Amino acid sequence: MRAEIITIGDELLIGQVVDTNSAWMAQRLNEAGIELYQITSVHDDREHILKALDEAFSRADIVLTTGGLGPTKDDITKHVMCEYFGTTLVEDSRVREHIHELYKERPDVLNRLTATQWLVPESATILPNRVGSAPIMVFENEVRGERLEVRGEGQNSKFLFAMPGVPYEMKIAMTEQVMPYIRLKVKGERLEVSGEIIHRTMMLYGIAESTLAIRIEEWENALPQSMHLAYLPKDGIIRLRLSSYGEASNEEIEQQLANLKPLIADYLIATEDLPLETILGNQLKARHQTIATAESCTGGRLAAALNAQSGASAYYMGSVVAYDNTIKEQVLGVKHDTLEKYGAVSEQTVREMAEGVRALMNTDYAIATSGIAGPTGGTPDKPVGTVWIAWATPDGTTAECYQFGVAREREQITQRAVTAALVELIKSLNTKQ
Amino acid sequence: MRAEIITIGDELLIGQVVDTNSAWMAQRLNEAGIELYQITSVHDDREHILKALDEAFSRADIVLTTGGLGPTKDDITKHVMCEYFGTTLVEDSRVREHIHELYKERPDVLNRLTATQWLVPESATILPNRVGSAPIMVFENEVRGERLEVRGEGQNSKFLFAMPGVPYEMKIAMTEQVMPYIRLKVKGERLEVSGEIIHRTMMLYGIAESTLAIRIEEWENALPQSMHLAYLPKDGIIRLRLSSYGEASNEEIEQQLANLKPLIADYLIATEDLPLETILGNQLKARHQTIATAESCTGGRLAAALNAQSGASAYYMGSVVAYDNTIKEQVLGVKHDTLEKYGAVSEQTVREMAEGVRALMNTDYAIATSGIAGPTGGTPDKPVGTVWIAWATPDGTTAECYQFGVAREREQITQRAVTAALVELIKSLNTKQ
Repeated sequence: MRAEIITIGDELLIGQVVDTNSAWMAQRLNEAGIELYQITSVHDDREHILKALDEAFSRADIVLTTGGLGPTKDDITKHVMCEYFGTTLVEDSRVREHIHELYKERPDVLNRLTATQWLVPESATILPNRVGSAPIMVFENEVRGERLEVRGEGQNSKFLFAMPGVPYEMKIAMTEQVMPYIRLKVKGERLEVSGEIIHRTMMLYGIAESTLAIRIEEWENALPQSMHLAYLPKDGIIRLRLSSYGEASNEEIEQQLANLKPLIADYLIATEDLPLETILGNQLKARHQTIATAESCTGGRLAAALNAQSGASAYYMGSVVAYDNTIKEQVLGVKHDTLEKYGAVSEQTVREMAEGVRALMNTDYAIATSGIAGPTGGTPDKPVGTVWIAWATPDGTTAECYQFGVAREREQITQRAVTAALVELIKSLNTKQ
Repeated sequence: MRAEIITIGDELLIGQVVDTNSAWMAQRLNEAGIELYQITSVHDDREHILKALDEAFSRADIVLTTGGLGPTKDDITKHVMCEYFGTTLVEDSRVREHIHELYKERPDVLNRLTATQWLVPESATILPNRVGSAPIMVFENEVRGERLEVRGEGQNSKFLFAMPGVPYEMKIAMTEQVMPYIRLKVKGERLEVSGEIIHRTMMLYGIAESTLAIRIEEWENALPQSMHLAYLPKDGIIRLRLSSYGEASNEEIEQQLANLKPLIADYLIATEDLPLETILGNQLKARHQTIATAESCTGGRLAAALNAQSGASAYYMGSVVAYDNTIKEQVLGVKHDTLEKYGAVSEQTVREMAEGVRALMNTDYAIATSGIAGPTGGTPDKPVGTVWIAWATPDGTTAECYQFGVAREREQITQRAVTAALVELIKSLNTKQ
């Protein structure tokens, strides 16, 4: 079963907003065994939306739209849907009551623009939006367009789900309403439910994409037709993804992966596509050990990664972001002489930072970073992209110098430093298992 | 002049990767006065790419693609382009030399897969990729498809630019090669260059979207046809954007904004669409003042925001992420009694955290956060989403309790806390000007 996503909003097409919704929705659809065929971003423009709907329905059974459901003039999605599905707006008393409840402590919001939110397309099924005023609309069957015919009830229906574009409203709408509806009403009706979509990802670090491809070439060439391999390099990590769209069994996939693993063992960080902080967090939790960070160039990003998952307080104690050198001395206890003699971006400083925060916060592990994130501040000896990282552990402290390249941007350099800092500790804990 | 973007890659459609490229590219196109009409994400699939190219060229003069240019089997973009434009691959000696230079210190990468990267489509113009092995390809005129004809040189040419999908490679390719090419060769050829696309954004905080719309309704209704207003709510901020696609002058837009400002003055944070950290950073730099943070629930995100821009060391000194209560006591000097009596998420604790870090780092301002980011850890008194924020300033300390809602996710709650923490300080510094 195929789906498409249409994201609606001028803000996407002038680059004011990054579309984070589609990737999240894609994951939910894949989990339900539904292939996402295409994502299309269109303007808040009647003709453009109508055209995109026609094209999407020509290829897919399910179309999901986000955006354009607000109460202000620039939001036209609801009106265009009425035109597309040949229906008109009517008042929905349940939506009205819900909105009154939602804003009971903010009477100024219960104004005449908000009142337009309880007008809904007559032929649509309305699903509740627990956290917002824009109702979620489901249209079935009555689709317009040359390549579409109104079909009888049952297995050949087509469905449109219109959701708000605000990410947290969309996520709740998808999780609580749209996906259950799809599983029950849409997939339930089909005689032939397609098989499971399986994606399995290996995470590797420290090998070039082409070198990896040559190393596993024989294995890759012997893969059955039903499986597809993809290489996804990012921030120094390669994600190697083996996919099957409903044709191979879980066991067949596992067998292929078992054959692959010995070929890539030296570079393997994880056998699932998980954030690095989750992998490290799980390692630390299993060992009942703790961690702290002392950061200069990463500026709190390593801290933020380490406490990103719920339950992080079991292993993450805290961090000192020592951006200014006085903080490195006074809070972390880096020696004045060390900073004078070697500078802030040096092996000596970063070792003292790591050991300093490990002692200060009384943890098992500590990571410290100091580098030149740029775009200014580079010198011939220490060009932009130079980053020292130290790991203080119960077995002693190690440090390494990285060169993340003058061509990269500030954000990219700090991201690479966070990745390297986490990966090296993950690898060292892996070998201790 | 219209452009479209086609992003190519299965990873986008299974939700493994968020497409951040398109928004960034959209901004660059808009700056050059080129309207981005549609963004389409398609699979690494021959038929799908060919169809998307046909459709995009039926609507636009310029098509930009990203992705699928790597050396591994799953990357097919270059071959599909050859088919679409009716050309074949030939060796390019300049690309070969560049790749040898690029990998001169990594001979293992100069393998036979990498060698396929210097095979390029014969009819394409090759632009250099300074930081990667995939050449940037430009195709002009010779386009396939029913609705497209091969046209003579000059003002009616159509152009395709194929770029790598790795964001930092794409950004360098766009900045250094593609945009200059478009400005010179594409726009330069046209007899009629369309007018400037102007977007002006006001940032507001503390007002509901519908309330704002009613407040400025009279002004909005009187806007000329050539201008378009959009409301973009996110993380508690509303961005109010006035756009003109080449029809209104800068002066006309400025006049409209001058009329708007008195209506929204109470809620206005900034008259440009800038990250909050940039607004605050500029305020602090202008005053030669400094800031530090003490963070519990925001876990380093406030620190990361404050040092995100280059030159942050002029005003940002450092932070303590005091995730564990012992760190709040031992590093920040929060009294044991305070934590015992009021708990970590309380006005008393957050005030002591702010004052503690301000003294420790000897800064003018300090912000502290403590809250329950969830999904676990909530109590009936302090449900998930409760966040206390304190601002220690030369004029004393203030604190406020926020409720960012049980419905929201951990990431959303911490993001709202960062926003509130920055906005309140920005507003207070605005009034002191």
